[in-house]
Amino acid sequence: MMKHFDKAGILGADASFRRDLINSLAGYKSLNLIGTKSKSGITNLSPFSQVFHIGATPPLVGVLFRPNTVERHTLENILETGYFTLNHVTEAFYKQAHQTAARYQESEFNAVGLEEEYLSGFYAPFVKLSPVKVACSLQEQQTLQVNGTVLVIGAIEHVYVEESGLREDGSLDLNQLGTVTVSGLDEYHLGKKLARLSYPKPGKDLQEI
Amino acid sequence: MMKHFDKAGILGADASFRRDLINSLAGYKSLNLIGTKSKSGITNLSPFSQVFHIGATPPLVGVLFRPNTVERHTLENILETGYFTLNHVTEAFYKQAHQTAARYQESEFNAVGLEEEYLSGFYAPFVKLSPVKVACSLQEQQTLQVNGTVLVIGAIEHVYVEESGLREDGSLDLNQLGTVTVSGLDEYHLGKKLARLSYPKPGKDLQEI
Repeated sequence: MMKHFDKAGILGADASFRRDLINSLAGYKSLNLIGTKSKSGITNLSPFSQVFHIGATPPLVGVLFRPNTVERHTLENILETGYFTLNHVTEAFYKQAHQTAARYQESEFNAVGLEEEYLSGFYAPFVKLSPVKVACSLQEQQTLQVNGTVLVIGAIEHVYVEESGLREDGSLDLNQLGTVTVSGLDEYHLGKKLARLSYPKPGKDLQEI
Repeated sequence: MMKHFDKAGILGADASFRRDLINSLAGYKSLNLIGTKSKSGITNLSPFSQVFHIGATPPLVGVLFRPNTVERHTLENILETGYFTLNHVTEAFYKQAHQTAARYQESEFNAVGLEEEYLSGFYAPFVKLSPVKVACSLQEQQTLQVNGTVLVIGAIEHVYVEESGLREDGSLDLNQLGTVTVSGLDEYHLGKKLARLSYPKPGKDLQEI
């Protein structure tokens, strides 16, 4: 049986029901801890599920910041200093990653017990335990008129990947890396590989690769 | 051992290596088939991994279209008619979903054998087999100056969800629904739930909920 909600039904629902439903609708989401440091040297760490590929040449990544959320320290630090890091989350520390979303006054690194790491002289901190770490510099930001959401576009400056999860063709084996995915606002999952499929062409059967 | 690539190393790598690496960097991605229909009545179906939550009140969703890709029919149909659907992909038809990315002249529904469905008089077609179907109307589009990527913002008009995967609080149980997630360009996974965690507050222990 399919349950149906029209727009009026969604808008008329309880606010938390609407929030949970709309947050779940796209499906599984990427999960990255974004590391930043303020001009005055205070580090910040916060979980983001809205990080996406914008281009490979040059390598660019986009991050969406919703208006009026707890994540504003991250956005302020990025706009102030121009630097941020993305760090994959694994089963070993996903609960600490979730806890970084609490409204701490101090650095979330200290508060939840995740160790900072500095690599290649980059200003923003990485998460030492993370098997995939990406250093980005602020390339562009724009505000979506529709609701004040801010889109930050970052230029990828450095990539660090645990070698066991990097394939010869450049793709990452996320099952091997232990990367976690999130659904809705608060539910965490590991990926369980079904298959990797060949490039699709009309009239040609797909192969597992 | 961590492998390190700096920007020069990424830009100097083989184009396909770079493409696979940068596409993998964010982690697991959502997977939706986008259904559209041209003004002249030809339906189109194409897989997208860049669909994300923009807001819940009003309910809005964003889709990124990379410049000069095979997915342009989808974008053209959306801009021409103002309507599109999002459809979750399950293990039962993820290979057909992958195959819709081939450059067909005819409708991908027919080409790969996925049945169209029309609900609530909405113009764009849904995928009948999909356990989560969302009808969207074009709200706004903007082109990112940095590389010509197009951001389409859709207003959510209807949501159809298989009841067994809809929780009382509004969140979706993606494991129950059988929703598939994608990594890189071509690797498919099911989610394997770790836990759902309580709202994080400083000094308060997390609970599984």
